[in-house]
Amino acid sequence: MTSNPCQVKISIAQLDYHIGNFESNIRKIREAIHQARDESADLILFAELAVSGYPPRDFLEFDDFIHECELGIHSIAQDCTGIAAIVGSPSLNPNPKGKKLFNTAWFLAGGKVMAMTHKSLLPNYDVFDEYRYFEPNKDFKVIDYKGIKIAITICEDLWNMTDTPLYTASPMEMLIRQHPDLLINIAASPFHYDQMNIRRDVLSRNASTYGLPVFYVNHIGAQTELIFDGGSMVVDRRGKVVDELNYFQEDLRFYRYDKDKKDVQLSDRGIMGPQNLDTSRIALIYDALVLGIRTYFRKLGFRDAILGLSGGIDSAVTLVLAAEALGNEHVHAILLPSRYSTGHSVRDAVELAENLGVPCQTISIEEIFRSCESTLLTAFEDRPPDVTEENIQARIRAVVLMALANKFGYILLNTSNKSEAAVGYGTLYGDMCGGLAVLGDVYKTQVYELASYINRLKEIIPVNTIQKPPSAELRSGQLDSDLLPDYDLLDRILFQYIELRQGPQEIINMGFDETIVRKVLRMVNTNEYKRHQTPPILRISPKAFGMGRRMPIVARYLS
Amino acid sequence: MTSNPCQVKISIAQLDYHIGNFESNIRKIREAIHQARDESADLILFAELAVSGYPPRDFLEFDDFIHECELGIHSIAQDCTGIAAIVGSPSLNPNPKGKKLFNTAWFLAGGKVMAMTHKSLLPNYDVFDEYRYFEPNKDFKVIDYKGIKIAITICEDLWNMTDTPLYTASPMEMLIRQHPDLLINIAASPFHYDQMNIRRDVLSRNASTYGLPVFYVNHIGAQTELIFDGGSMVVDRRGKVVDELNYFQEDLRFYRYDKDKKDVQLSDRGIMGPQNLDTSRIALIYDALVLGIRTYFRKLGFRDAILGLSGGIDSAVTLVLAAEALGNEHVHAILLPSRYSTGHSVRDAVELAENLGVPCQTISIEEIFRSCESTLLTAFEDRPPDVTEENIQARIRAVVLMALANKFGYILLNTSNKSEAAVGYGTLYGDMCGGLAVLGDVYKTQVYELASYINRLKEIIPVNTIQKPPSAELRSGQLDSDLLPDYDLLDRILFQYIELRQGPQEIINMGFDETIVRKVLRMVNTNEYKRHQTPPILRISPKAFGMGRRMPIVARYLS
Repeated sequence: MTSNPCQVKISIAQLDYHIGNFESNIRKIREAIHQARDESADLILFAELAVSGYPPRDFLEFDDFIHECELGIHSIAQDCTGIAAIVGSPSLNPNPKGKKLFNTAWFLAGGKVMAMTHKSLLPNYDVFDEYRYFEPNKDFKVIDYKGIKIAITICEDLWNMTDTPLYTASPMEMLIRQHPDLLINIAASPFHYDQMNIRRDVLSRNASTYGLPVFYVNHIGAQTELIFDGGSMVVDRRGKVVDELNYFQEDLRFYRYDKDKKDVQLSDRGIMGPQNLDTSRIALIYDALVLGIRTYFRKLGFRDAILGLSGGIDSAVTLVLAAEALGNEHVHAILLPSRYSTGHSVRDAVELAENLGVPCQTISIEEIFRSCESTLLTAFEDRPPDVTEENIQARIRAVVLMALANKFGYILLNTSNKSEAAVGYGTLYGDMCGGLAVLGDVYKTQVYELASYINRLKEIIPVNTIQKPPSAELRSGQLDSDLLPDYDLLDRILFQYIELRQGPQEIINMGFDETIVRKVLRMVNTNEYKRHQTPPILRISPKAFGMGRRMPIVARYLS
Repeated sequence: MTSNPCQVKISIAQLDYHIGNFESNIRKIREAIHQARDESADLILFAELAVSGYPPRDFLEFDDFIHECELGIHSIAQDCTGIAAIVGSPSLNPNPKGKKLFNTAWFLAGGKVMAMTHKSLLPNYDVFDEYRYFEPNKDFKVIDYKGIKIAITICEDLWNMTDTPLYTASPMEMLIRQHPDLLINIAASPFHYDQMNIRRDVLSRNASTYGLPVFYVNHIGAQTELIFDGGSMVVDRRGKVVDELNYFQEDLRFYRYDKDKKDVQLSDRGIMGPQNLDTSRIALIYDALVLGIRTYFRKLGFRDAILGLSGGIDSAVTLVLAAEALGNEHVHAILLPSRYSTGHSVRDAVELAENLGVPCQTISIEEIFRSCESTLLTAFEDRPPDVTEENIQARIRAVVLMALANKFGYILLNTSNKSEAAVGYGTLYGDMCGGLAVLGDVYKTQVYELASYINRLKEIIPVNTIQKPPSAELRSGQLDSDLLPDYDLLDRILFQYIELRQGPQEIINMGFDETIVRKVLRMVNTNEYKRHQTPPILRISPKAFGMGRRMPIVARYLS
């Protein structure tokens, strides 16, 4: 307990939850409560849907799952003596009308549930589906705790401050009428490369608009494609960021809020700001991808990755990221040369593996390729070679890689980049295989930026890998530029279409060549069927392929 | 024009729209308007989002797409002279607050837009995502046309008549206060095997509750996984179905509504009820799957399918459905025997192809399999054979089938059933490949029912295929029952878990063995990663794998 009645000590617990892993999530929450109580904190904050993990998706439709969440809340509540906690978990809507659940911040104190605050604004765009499960809250009540009036909001509730708001309701306009002393926001706000700045801006504007200090708590860790970077923070009532927790790591910090001074400051036990964080966009992407890989393997209970190393830049960057995430000895690089592989590609691949100290093995696909040619000779009826033979090679590589993955219990990493995924430049069941697509949200030009970032101190990725013209090496003399515009041009068109959702005429009006624009957009739309069957993609942009971009497969628009 | 001022002639146009194919959709709508005007109809009804096709999904986020929809509406409006039309298409929300779009029924007459009615209840469960795009309507107004007051609703608007309604609002409660004469519902209501009865019941209850005749118009055709069966209908004010349009076909019919008699009847030009429809559940599933395959190929511009014919029941049933949908000569059956294929399987497969008159070819995978074994010998480090070698065979078959599909421009049909997909009994990038999963929503026990239905008049599928114990034939003497419970038991557990979303304890309480229940649920949950990469699945049940069932991949719940 704090001595000054107008002061409270508030802790923020930024943790990595695992969807549906109640044992682990509840244990982590309880341990943080014990630690905070040992530090004489009055209140500790946990993220949105911490008990279930986020996003639980259709598990929320199972009564059994909701029951587990409720058991979790009540077991956590029992630990809340001498300390209060705010914990995110779903709750049942007592009204027979409307959806069955609320997305709730549970206020636990005195060993029991003291209050519940439900989320009002339910994001239902991009990767979010909250209106699928939850009824929006329409009942606003500030919570009084130790003489301090707390406005509790959940993530999106603070996210509607624009001239064209997505929601007609505004929870803060309702809550501010009750004259709260401070504002708490528990969140599940996934990473993309601009999110850090947007988040600071939104929280700061809420703080200064309402003249209230803001305590914000987020998840860290990854849930399949979604990466949570943390970045929990405290903002004072003038909108200034007082402190930010670490990015890409679990963290627990303490703050003092003084009601008389309306001031908030880091407790003496704390450390200020995120540690050792390079906030350049490419560094954030690098860190996010490493966290994404690491969490994916750990939560699935796997230790080792396998990937095909071609000598090209995509597999090189993927290998470096995987080695950083899992440890060099836990990544297995396989060279799979065919008759079309160039000598320099093999050399570049071996050099990279040696630079990293990653185990590396060469398995020629030539014998299998010849047996495929011989097996298919009659059936092909003397048709001339075409893309079919290229696809066969890519698929044989997948057969070999998956065989090793199955035999030794590895997960195959997919190395396709976002530019390729966009235009369908890849072989389904071939190089589009894998358990996780590491670079599937990274445009080719950004893959080059990652390579430069990786090489910033010394040459890890061979300079030849970076400098040579990209090629799939599936036939003699093949170059990506045979079929595609230069990646610099391609990526700028793709960005307009995918991230900014500009139409063909809008993109042409920017000065891009009409023929190229229409060709690129047609390639994107006609290859939806390929993307439908690809691995989950680690999301680092505001608009990634996968759950956040939902397109019809059978359609005829711009195609 | 009708002679009696209190009578109007109303036409229902039940059409197959193609998402984003504005040229085709608008042409179909205009042709139907011309035909109806030639028949002196006063009003013609088209389905929800007819102009765009349904569901347009994230195309709705493109201004260019919305602009195309608006151009379409205005070009259709120009044809509406001497006749009025109600057409579904999105519209822009003029309010800067809230989502950008409404899901709108456009009332077109006198060559222009006369009124707009927006959808109020936006389904956002299962396969539906409407709240992702649309703002709910809160402004209710009956439309006066030729002295008749029409209450226009859109699909879900009528679908909330339960004791625990999903929505707190009720559009009909608002509209009925304005004393409408008749009720129109334009819909996009996809097929599942119970939907016909549910739909009749919902429309009938609305009609009798509000004492109004109901005109209902739906889509037919398929949009990737969603199959629209049609079943547009007219219900009188006592709730009796007056007429139903054909199922699984385009149709155009005419009705007379008499305001004085408050009565509705089929126009003299009409034919009564759906033609030649077997309404048994298995017949509906058969018809739906045939329509699903046919539409998928036609809308993608493909004519020919290829599939691997094993001699087992899944590929046999898939072949029959494909032959019915595409024509015998457009389906290419490939037998791909390995050292583990039994003689009877090969004979059964050939016999089926002969019975159907489908071209059939045998390609042994033995040579490729041997070259894989030899290529991988060193890398496998003397590890004993396991499931890896089984997966290799399944993947070689995929390499061969995809090679033929690529070389000749065919689409590979996936033959996996729902039971296998549920428990992950299949090889990713092997037998789980394909452009479309025909049986992915059909449990194994239902596959047997389909086989019996197919054989109801004569033996098309060899009786041996139906009677032998199921086997993947990937090693000597292998049977499905080595790893799985009997399909009869398995399917009953899966139905409880997947369709009814019962938890483990609830299923055990029904009398199922606890060990088996927990094993089955664990298999379902740990194989989410496989289902994530499978082809789109034709949906015939209320809960299919795919867009309607959204599960985290990395999770630990019941696993």
